[in-house]
Amino acid sequence: MDAPIGVFDSGVGGLTVVKEIMRQLPGENLVYFGDTARVPYGSKSKITVCKYSRQIVRFLQTKNVKAVVAACNTASALALDEIRDEIDIPVLGVVEPGAVMAAETTRTKNIGIIGTESTIKSGIYNKFLHRIDPDITVVSKACPLFVPLVEEGLWEDRVTEDIVGRYLHELKEYDIDALILGCTHYPLLRRIIGQEMGENVKLVNPAYETAKSLKTLLTEKDLLNTTGIDEKEPSYDYFVSDGVEKFISFADDVLSCHVEKAEIIDIESF
Amino acid sequence: MDAPIGVFDSGVGGLTVVKEIMRQLPGENLVYFGDTARVPYGSKSKITVCKYSRQIVRFLQTKNVKAVVAACNTASALALDEIRDEIDIPVLGVVEPGAVMAAETTRTKNIGIIGTESTIKSGIYNKFLHRIDPDITVVSKACPLFVPLVEEGLWEDRVTEDIVGRYLHELKEYDIDALILGCTHYPLLRRIIGQEMGENVKLVNPAYETAKSLKTLLTEKDLLNTTGIDEKEPSYDYFVSDGVEKFISFADDVLSCHVEKAEIIDIESF
Repeated sequence: MDAPIGVFDSGVGGLTVVKEIMRQLPGENLVYFGDTARVPYGSKSKITVCKYSRQIVRFLQTKNVKAVVAACNTASALALDEIRDEIDIPVLGVVEPGAVMAAETTRTKNIGIIGTESTIKSGIYNKFLHRIDPDITVVSKACPLFVPLVEEGLWEDRVTEDIVGRYLHELKEYDIDALILGCTHYPLLRRIIGQEMGENVKLVNPAYETAKSLKTLLTEKDLLNTTGIDEKEPSYDYFVSDGVEKFISFADDVLSCHVEKAEIIDIESF
Repeated sequence: MDAPIGVFDSGVGGLTVVKEIMRQLPGENLVYFGDTARVPYGSKSKITVCKYSRQIVRFLQTKNVKAVVAACNTASALALDEIRDEIDIPVLGVVEPGAVMAAETTRTKNIGIIGTESTIKSGIYNKFLHRIDPDITVVSKACPLFVPLVEEGLWEDRVTEDIVGRYLHELKEYDIDALILGCTHYPLLRRIIGQEMGENVKLVNPAYETAKSLKTLLTEKDLLNTTGIDEKEPSYDYFVSDGVEKFISFADDVLSCHVEKAEIIDIESF
């Protein structure tokens, strides 16, 4: 089935998920929407994140997508059930795949989670982890400065090391051996976070796991694109609610392929 | 005239302007709107900031405001002319009063400006300053991390000192003697910024100047509220697009009076 997969995020962070989907599902067509006008979602309420996510899904449906991936942890945490109730195509978030992977990884049954304020407050990772194994202990911490630090380009900086140290200090008091990077920006701080936590803590990147789950889901539902890549190159279309140039520049940094254009969408009208 | 003054901001920062208006115009009724769902504006494009500002002004007009104050530097920089074209009540931003004060202050005719990415990119402070005195040299610098640092409560912190030092380093190479704090959050970092710049640089806070200009404007247009405070306490009404509790808690920290309630508005419908 050659209909595209719709992927959305509050901004540009979801492109890390897109990159993984391109790698693991190279034959699929993609439509990406980044809500760059209303970014960030991480400090917003459930009601607002649900409303914004619904508008985006309605837009993606005009592109005849065969499945929707919420590539934003906050949207996955707050809005996934609501979206699923509204549409009859498969919807996948990044939270469940990340939780499954962390549960498979841990030996101590102590798992750490870092994310935005709204993701952590939602308790959604805890819910999934406890559904998998009620004996798992979850330690979570909101890290509101990580996104601005990444966006300012301070991926390797003494200030970022200082802030990482403060946020993660508490987590180190528990015997965790897996830490979920519960926000699409955080894998960009992987080295500093890894250094702070030590080599006994495995960092779980939900982007990777989500692409894997998506492949399984499409296979099960017989939705994979069977047109060979040799016959037709996959199409990748990008849409944003603001700032096309800034988006393209970031996308070019993150993705392995060059992004030629992105289109502005008046998302509030959906 | 007892109609209220409408004040708006991208979020909570504009409350520093509200505080000054309450102090300098204690007899006026106020209606505040904070766009907490779509905050921040500082990284957004002109077209988006204009659209959001227009929606907010349309909302404020339903409250029969007699004047509008854009208490957000980014909205003042990008959307003021557009708003003025659309409504027939006085509209005041924070940029012009700040520029006037800086021009009055400087002796060296070298003025520094710090603000959000969009405010700095707009070049609006330069335009006003050069209109006042073409001989003024303007040095500007965007400081994207200041708002997240303030919102994380790191007003007095070694990390903030480090970041302030990096952003302001360039400005110190010029012989500036006035620095405009061109974002409503920045006065909260006044001590660290002052320490970095040295005592010969006067820090200009547009919030203070805006309240003064508003008083002059209302006096000239014969719009002051002549009902005495003894007869009737002024009314202050607060509206936001998201997160009432968080707003009230911040407002209580900033304002001298207790905020009892705030109402959520579906601002996209205006």
